[in-house]
Amino acid sequence: MKPVRVGLLGLGVVGSGVWTVLAQNNAEIARRAGRLIEVVAVAVRDVDKARALVGDEVRITTDGLELVRDPDIDIIVELIGGNTVARSLILEAIAQGKHVVTANKALLASDGNEIFAQAQARGVIVGFEAAVAGGIPIIKAMREGLTANRIQWVAGIINGTTNFILSEMRARGLPFEDVLAEAQRLGYAEADPTFDVEGVDAAHKLTLLASLAFGIPVQFDKAHIEGISHLAPEDIAHAERLGYRIKLLGITRRRAEGIELRVHPALVPAGSLIANVEGAMNAVLVHGDAVGDTLYYGQGAGSMPTASAVVADLVDVARLQMADPEHHVPYLAFQPDAMSDFPVLNMASVRTSYFLRLRVDDQPGVLADLARLLSDAGISVGSMFQQPHGVHQADIIFLTHEAREGDVDDALAAIRDLPFVHSGVIRLRVENFN
Amino acid sequence: MKPVRVGLLGLGVVGSGVWTVLAQNNAEIARRAGRLIEVVAVAVRDVDKARALVGDEVRITTDGLELVRDPDIDIIVELIGGNTVARSLILEAIAQGKHVVTANKALLASDGNEIFAQAQARGVIVGFEAAVAGGIPIIKAMREGLTANRIQWVAGIINGTTNFILSEMRARGLPFEDVLAEAQRLGYAEADPTFDVEGVDAAHKLTLLASLAFGIPVQFDKAHIEGISHLAPEDIAHAERLGYRIKLLGITRRRAEGIELRVHPALVPAGSLIANVEGAMNAVLVHGDAVGDTLYYGQGAGSMPTASAVVADLVDVARLQMADPEHHVPYLAFQPDAMSDFPVLNMASVRTSYFLRLRVDDQPGVLADLARLLSDAGISVGSMFQQPHGVHQADIIFLTHEAREGDVDDALAAIRDLPFVHSGVIRLRVENFN
Repeated sequence: MKPVRVGLLGLGVVGSGVWTVLAQNNAEIARRAGRLIEVVAVAVRDVDKARALVGDEVRITTDGLELVRDPDIDIIVELIGGNTVARSLILEAIAQGKHVVTANKALLASDGNEIFAQAQARGVIVGFEAAVAGGIPIIKAMREGLTANRIQWVAGIINGTTNFILSEMRARGLPFEDVLAEAQRLGYAEADPTFDVEGVDAAHKLTLLASLAFGIPVQFDKAHIEGISHLAPEDIAHAERLGYRIKLLGITRRRAEGIELRVHPALVPAGSLIANVEGAMNAVLVHGDAVGDTLYYGQGAGSMPTASAVVADLVDVARLQMADPEHHVPYLAFQPDAMSDFPVLNMASVRTSYFLRLRVDDQPGVLADLARLLSDAGISVGSMFQQPHGVHQADIIFLTHEAREGDVDDALAAIRDLPFVHSGVIRLRVENFN
Repeated sequence: MKPVRVGLLGLGVVGSGVWTVLAQNNAEIARRAGRLIEVVAVAVRDVDKARALVGDEVRITTDGLELVRDPDIDIIVELIGGNTVARSLILEAIAQGKHVVTANKALLASDGNEIFAQAQARGVIVGFEAAVAGGIPIIKAMREGLTANRIQWVAGIINGTTNFILSEMRARGLPFEDVLAEAQRLGYAEADPTFDVEGVDAAHKLTLLASLAFGIPVQFDKAHIEGISHLAPEDIAHAERLGYRIKLLGITRRRAEGIELRVHPALVPAGSLIANVEGAMNAVLVHGDAVGDTLYYGQGAGSMPTASAVVADLVDVARLQMADPEHHVPYLAFQPDAMSDFPVLNMASVRTSYFLRLRVDDQPGVLADLARLLSDAGISVGSMFQQPHGVHQADIIFLTHEAREGDVDDALAAIRDLPFVHSGVIRLRVENFN
């Protein structure tokens, strides 16, 4: 099939991520989409900078309208941001019958009703997975995954900057201003941080989530918005004493009389999963009457995570244009003719860390002998401790660094033969996810 | 549009949940799907029991083949389970050109390659969101939400029974056998718990996740499977001392030489989100090269959560049969002509709990006056503590029970007027998500 032809408006943080993801995962994406997705043109302010990234094969222009009106382009990806140029380019793309993918939450929160109505009338898709919670497929979950439910409420940490600041304020007992300055140095906060720290960015996203949850028009002007700049470290400490942590939440809830729509700092139980979402991470809790609580967690911003969501929307469009409607989404994610015979490995070749518990006679030299055996097998030990078991025995616990399972099992076979080692050697795997 | 006509095979735990969800959320689901989804016939063993649930309007038969061959039925939902009858009915439904939705992970793990090939040839959908992790839309996330990524690994708590047992073993220091007996009494474990506790059920699900992640055929026979019946409470305690918890994980990972596919207990860092997934809950971590870590959490079993996933698959089919291909999934989740003008509430009518911090002169009667004022406004206090601030002042912290925000603000206005209360009253909201 012929490639899907994409025109990219903007090549900043997210735009360059989209370019990189498509270049890097070209083959893997085509195995899923059933066809290639190709950026054929970009519209940018700085042509030379763009040329350095995309090379000579891709058309570069400073005129977004030229792309939007190009009949050879199937999909426009809008990553300029803001409510002016982006708005008119998106509306013109729709008028031209092009599908649109955007990460522009500010625009959709203010002008979404008009944009979706125009797109509906013209019969084109407007994908905006990247507009809320970056790489987390929360729009898809709510729009397609939870369709059986009457959704009762949604509560999310949907701004990474403020979650980073609150995490640091708690961990280090520092005031807001100090942590904000540090976040700005680290690139987690912008020079003018108002939109983030005053809750406006979170309210843009919450406005979209409320529409998805309850089937109401986008109503940003009705949102109640409070930020975190007035929070004192002592309130974080008092909250902790009461068993709570403070998070900036976007909350929307169905009540008998109407919909709550509010962004503000809130105390959440310290043991809850959402309280343990730390640093710049995002998480969204959705409560449906059938499914109960579900939670979606991941990176809510950044070049590559946001690009992940943009490209997923492109794949949706590519799949929708396949010949037979039943096969838009392949059963096992990849197209049947693109399945791989990559082998499944046997366990001996798996590499991970190991927890070992050995029950031994409590006599001199035991630990040295065991350590030598492990070391000879190329297995290095991270932690070790010994605990008496009765009067004459002891349990020795090793935590190894990463090792090949076959090597560990060979070493354990030799260890089991040692006269001072009792039977029942325990070997458990350790997963650190890194 | 005319309703989607569903034939239901099996009316047990999940089947009755599907019936209930469709009955209960009929209107809400139609607002999303664009048409009604109607169960027109069920095949069961016990006709009288079925009649009591579905009433007189629905055809009841004991012959699954009759449903599968009925030309008036669009979609077959298979909730019988097992590899024999379910297998032949699904294959016959596909041969008849019917779409199929199933929760049968054991069957798909063993016969998935054949079933998907038949369905592909016949041009029908086989939805199986309910086969992995119950109500969590993890299949959709992996098949559609993360399509931009080269997925590196997936690690999941995908069996609720074993997670419940491990949570209880840790919390109460009890041996496996005791907790298993309790789980059986509570209905979290079956009379013959082998499939769950020995990791077979998790391996069925992991086999499907591996195919979705890497585009390999379903290969259950290659999975390495260990259960939790050999775990001792002392190893859980040792692990905790080292900063870990023990979870039964399904792990599949891409290596240079092939794919790891393994279910076994594993130590995971105690501070990680997945370590804090407690009780019968499920969670799946997916790591993609662009998106990084993402996590999906919710109820992995049970009547209504599993039904949530079955019905979501039905909505996918219903939407796919809409007239214009671009509008299968409505922009804002609900069909444009089904949007609601349900109002957004103002903040005064929001009800939640409150954290209040008041700086006061440290003098007799202060606390009594404050408590009286709150009580007069109908606000009841859950916790309170006082902390000296300098020599003559104190901070008083109240944690209230649920109250109307307007009432709280009125009370605070009165409190601010008290001569012994200093300015800078702090009022934060508390969200307990219940």
